[in-house]
Amino acid sequence: MESYSLVPIAVVESCYKQKFAIPRQSGLVPTGRGRIRFLPEFSCAEAVEGLEQASHIWLQFVFHGIDKPSFGQQGDWSPRVRPPRLGGNQKIGVFASRSTHRPNPIGLSAVKLDKVVIEDKQVSLEVSGLDLLDGTPVLDIKPYIPYADCIESASHGFAEEEPEKLSVCFDSQAEEQLSEIQCGHSICLKTLIKEVLQQDPRPAYRQLDDRVYGVRLLNFELNWQYSQRDKGAEIRVLGLSVEG
Amino acid sequence: MESYSLVPIAVVESCYKQKFAIPRQSGLVPTGRGRIRFLPEFSCAEAVEGLEQASHIWLQFVFHGIDKPSFGQQGDWSPRVRPPRLGGNQKIGVFASRSTHRPNPIGLSAVKLDKVVIEDKQVSLEVSGLDLLDGTPVLDIKPYIPYADCIESASHGFAEEEPEKLSVCFDSQAEEQLSEIQCGHSICLKTLIKEVLQQDPRPAYRQLDDRVYGVRLLNFELNWQYSQRDKGAEIRVLGLSVEG
Repeated sequence: MESYSLVPIAVVESCYKQKFAIPRQSGLVPTGRGRIRFLPEFSCAEAVEGLEQASHIWLQFVFHGIDKPSFGQQGDWSPRVRPPRLGGNQKIGVFASRSTHRPNPIGLSAVKLDKVVIEDKQVSLEVSGLDLLDGTPVLDIKPYIPYADCIESASHGFAEEEPEKLSVCFDSQAEEQLSEIQCGHSICLKTLIKEVLQQDPRPAYRQLDDRVYGVRLLNFELNWQYSQRDKGAEIRVLGLSVEG
Repeated sequence: MESYSLVPIAVVESCYKQKFAIPRQSGLVPTGRGRIRFLPEFSCAEAVEGLEQASHIWLQFVFHGIDKPSFGQQGDWSPRVRPPRLGGNQKIGVFASRSTHRPNPIGLSAVKLDKVVIEDKQVSLEVSGLDLLDGTPVLDIKPYIPYADCIESASHGFAEEEPEKLSVCFDSQAEEQLSEIQCGHSICLKTLIKEVLQQDPRPAYRQLDDRVYGVRLLNFELNWQYSQRDKGAEIRVLGLSVEG
């Protein structure tokens, strides 16, 4: 069978340093920012001329940090997957999902284009609403074209609306650590943490546990716990620490 | 530089048999139908289970029928292109366009999913609003997820709205030929022809000529001409003939 050889044109610098807790679609965490850094061969101001007219862009990328490299091993794919949206128990076809485990492990995300940055020979795009792991290789960048891409009549059985959001609270210790860590960051870390955790990043197949989870974001790690109280379910941020 | 080897999972059977006159984005010609036929290795009912819940799907594909094969020759790309939307004279960056001539010649189209067809071991998807050439290799199929993909706040400087449409009329000879050719087709050919031609498929850089163009659609060829009359610009269908 014929195959196609594609090369990365850019690499993602993301606030998400590990797979765990990355939002499950783009746009769900508006404060989730990153930078798309063109590789030297493709870093050319002319190639992005006019891109600033687009409020949003499509990233076609290679899934990064997945358990096994699938390239050249397309026989390894499994026809059914368990999407978190269905509670992690029910299986659906891989092509009915956006799962990372697919014959060609390529993904698709629409992100907000905040700024086109041209510094000497380095071209980068500042973006937000990102759902990609730091280091993700990008194969192509295209403008989001509202009349073609925003299909208002589109429907989807189980993924029509955004998932429900949990409330997020901060322990007093976490509040104090947060204000120390905030210095030197241009985005509001509290907003970022809230947006990330209100998605309930716990693995779908063990939604009942109350263990303490750790997540790396930007240059810090945060610990949090799910709790079910009288007033309802919530996520409590226990503490934050800068790494290294 | 690392490269990734991708294989086609399916092939497009399309009403568009040549590049000329293919709509410039998906959705512009709702009657433009096709079938996505999974290749034997990926043709498996389980892999599309649940896909019928999506009204629309994304196709990530390899541009087909482009002048030169770009694979493995990424050095050949040009940083600027002339999109038809800007009249074919103005250049913009390749990443600010959806042009086929890009470092990795992969495309992205959202099409309406009309039916999932499973016949013995052959899985196919009937789709409409297609903008792909017959024979296009498909690398991946994903459901369109309304809350993530339909970004109502998105804007774009020069491609915010659909291009204006021309009126299309049929010469009496063309009307007669049309009614003969219509037999055996499940879609209304007159609607398809109107939708295709009202996009004004003439090359953007010679919009003034009044030559007679020929276009192949499905199993027939049609001849048409642009004319500028007192009542305004229109496209006249001169005649149709079945091939072979």
